[in-house]
Amino acid sequence: MRNLKVFIAYNGAEYHGFQRQDNAVTVQEVVERALGKLLKTEPPTVYGCSRTDAGVHARRFCFNVHIDSAIPCEGFIKGMNTLLPRDIAVLSCEEAEEDFHARYCARGKEYVYMLSTKPQRDVFLQKLAYHYPYKPDVDTMNRAARLLVGEHDFAAFCRAECKGRVKSTVRTIYDMEVTERGDICEIRVRGNGFLYNMVRIAAGTLLYISEGRRTEQDILKALESGDRALCGVTLPPEGLYLNEVFY
Amino acid sequence: MRNLKVFIAYNGAEYHGFQRQDNAVTVQEVVERALGKLLKTEPPTVYGCSRTDAGVHARRFCFNVHIDSAIPCEGFIKGMNTLLPRDIAVLSCEEAEEDFHARYCARGKEYVYMLSTKPQRDVFLQKLAYHYPYKPDVDTMNRAARLLVGEHDFAAFCRAECKGRVKSTVRTIYDMEVTERGDICEIRVRGNGFLYNMVRIAAGTLLYISEGRRTEQDILKALESGDRALCGVTLPPEGLYLNEVFY
Repeated sequence: MRNLKVFIAYNGAEYHGFQRQDNAVTVQEVVERALGKLLKTEPPTVYGCSRTDAGVHARRFCFNVHIDSAIPCEGFIKGMNTLLPRDIAVLSCEEAEEDFHARYCARGKEYVYMLSTKPQRDVFLQKLAYHYPYKPDVDTMNRAARLLVGEHDFAAFCRAECKGRVKSTVRTIYDMEVTERGDICEIRVRGNGFLYNMVRIAAGTLLYISEGRRTEQDILKALESGDRALCGVTLPPEGLYLNEVFY
Repeated sequence: MRNLKVFIAYNGAEYHGFQRQDNAVTVQEVVERALGKLLKTEPPTVYGCSRTDAGVHARRFCFNVHIDSAIPCEGFIKGMNTLLPRDIAVLSCEEAEEDFHARYCARGKEYVYMLSTKPQRDVFLQKLAYHYPYKPDVDTMNRAARLLVGEHDFAAFCRAECKGRVKSTVRTIYDMEVTERGDICEIRVRGNGFLYNMVRIAAGTLLYISEGRRTEQDILKALESGDRALCGVTLPPEGLYLNEVFY
């Protein structure tokens, strides 16, 4: 059996995340159905690098899938892009080692949180950015972001229900940076792994810092104590992009 | 009665154009309903600067509306933006002369046709650009575009059914330019007025020129003869933006 390593992009606006669910349309289900049609088999199971929440986007998302077919990778890409809806695209496909697993082999990921800072909402970024109609204090946010870089216990930066589910809430952030170009402000973060809602809470905390509602001291205390209340709000999903997965 | 001059932006993906229709949701209807709610009256009639086709977008679209209310312009903008769906935004509102009419007083308009030229479709430009997965020959297109600038009979550049409806098919194009930045190619055109489908046919003709399927001679002959067959295809609506209206 072949093991294919496939990168896709998707606009998450119309999906309840990547991972298959019983009562909602997810990217996984749509991809598996297209695979079944392409290969003329039962839809095979794909293994995604991440779950991603409802409404979250992916510029580069990796999954692997075991198939019997001899279809060339080029044909796989073209065929899938014909079968998939226009908000999902296959970017690349290559042969992987037998034991490659998109989730367990990932060494790191990059996420971007995108804010549209125009006073009025941008009708073309409707489900593609979070509308934050103020000028954020980028320097202050960058100073605070540096406190999150490194290996820390990010228990304060994840949704309560996730804590029971993971063995450890320690993660390493390699770097985190806030940039501004015109009316778009982007918070970019790379790390070896992320807890549930971690990027959306971290981005919300930086905005609270920009607004003076939290201090750098609060961040340090949050890392120390695991107290969620010291962080900012969880920003909505439409601004979040999984930008890259590293292997 | 006051006469308000209002600029809006809208993402046309979910609308059957601006102008009210019996069996389809249009921007006009949604705006009028919001106005009725804001002013606590029957929805007043708004007069748009243009019809725009189903799926076409507007970065700046002007309408005027006669109202009795004393609501300040700032309150009008804020109120409307609260009441309107997220794919329509009021950008500005000012008092206009009694006889101002958004359509009849327009001196000119600017349209942009946007092409996404990535080999694979861009899932984030799904209904916001036309996916043309080739590298267009921008220099050749610009040479051809210059032939369209000036006062011409654009009968060949409009849908057959429009010819009976307008007094004249003579229009003036002030300028027309093709630019490329990364994987985005934009065809920008300014003129005193545009016939039905004129921009989409002109853009399609420039692409046919880029592909060697039409020549500069064909354009000259099309302008002379009014023969639609000498032009290129009508490009789909999702790439078209009404960018500005001049008064």
